[in-house]
Amino acid sequence: MNMEIERKFLVTSEDYKKESYKSERITQAYLNSHPERTVRVRTKGENAYLTIKGKSSESGLSRFEWEKEISIDDARELMKLAEPDVIDKTRYLIKQGTHIFEVDHFHGRNEGLIIAEVELNSEEEKFEKPAWLGKEVTRDKRYYNSLLSKKAYKTW
Amino acid sequence: MNMEIERKFLVTSEDYKKESYKSERITQAYLNSHPERTVRVRTKGENAYLTIKGKSSESGLSRFEWEKEISIDDARELMKLAEPDVIDKTRYLIKQGTHIFEVDHFHGRNEGLIIAEVELNSEEEKFEKPAWLGKEVTRDKRYYNSLLSKKAYKTW
Repeated sequence: MNMEIERKFLVTSEDYKKESYKSERITQAYLNSHPERTVRVRTKGENAYLTIKGKSSESGLSRFEWEKEISIDDARELMKLAEPDVIDKTRYLIKQGTHIFEVDHFHGRNEGLIIAEVELNSEEEKFEKPAWLGKEVTRDKRYYNSLLSKKAYKTW
Repeated sequence: MNMEIERKFLVTSEDYKKESYKSERITQAYLNSHPERTVRVRTKGENAYLTIKGKSSESGLSRFEWEKEISIDDARELMKLAEPDVIDKTRYLIKQGTHIFEVDHFHGRNEGLIIAEVELNSEEEKFEKPAWLGKEVTRDKRYYNSLLSKKAYKTW
């Protein structure tokens, strides 16, 4: 178990793609999409993970997280039990100063949505902002992947 | 992942206690109590498990099950995120012929309820019935632990 501290932003241009040193396709589905006890099955390239997240702290920046790697076969079986709406996205990794930004370009029913996240060691930690970083949406629950799986961006 | 095939019965006397070769206290809580995608955190003595179950087959006897052992510390942290109602029971193990019956004596809000379960290799498999075995309740969802956590036996 650990505390995940993260800030989330919209993205204003596709320049992040040029700056990216790695990209991977991610598919994920939910065994529970409730924001207070999210249970997620994810495949990322050839790997798979089961992740459980608690509710957000009052500031909206921190969340309890527990994650275990599982086999890709188990992930595929668990996805069959999951809620029907699957999140499909490509994740780009970009170094900026001492931080790594993860930029998620969504596909399918969330196409058009691009979100950048940066993980921090404390809620007060400073970080350099890339030029393509737009409005902060950390506290806006609509951008939770668990909620995007139910209420897709294209339906907003 | 495997298919769990199980039949469930009420218990008509306390004689199972005399026949039992082992007993353990079990506490469990749910990260999802939905019968189609149950996510359970369990402590059993000094061990702990995360278990995911799918919906029942049409016969009501079989259910997909995925289980991983986790640390007791992780289990305690995950229980804090779980739905508030915890199941507390003592499990007695009893050998009968070639099978093992698990008899769960519930405590707290489910006190008064005693359920015996036997795991089978096929839905048609025969088994010897102990003298204290009562009515079969395999198909009655009220006896699912996930539902007993929400709608306790004492409130029926």
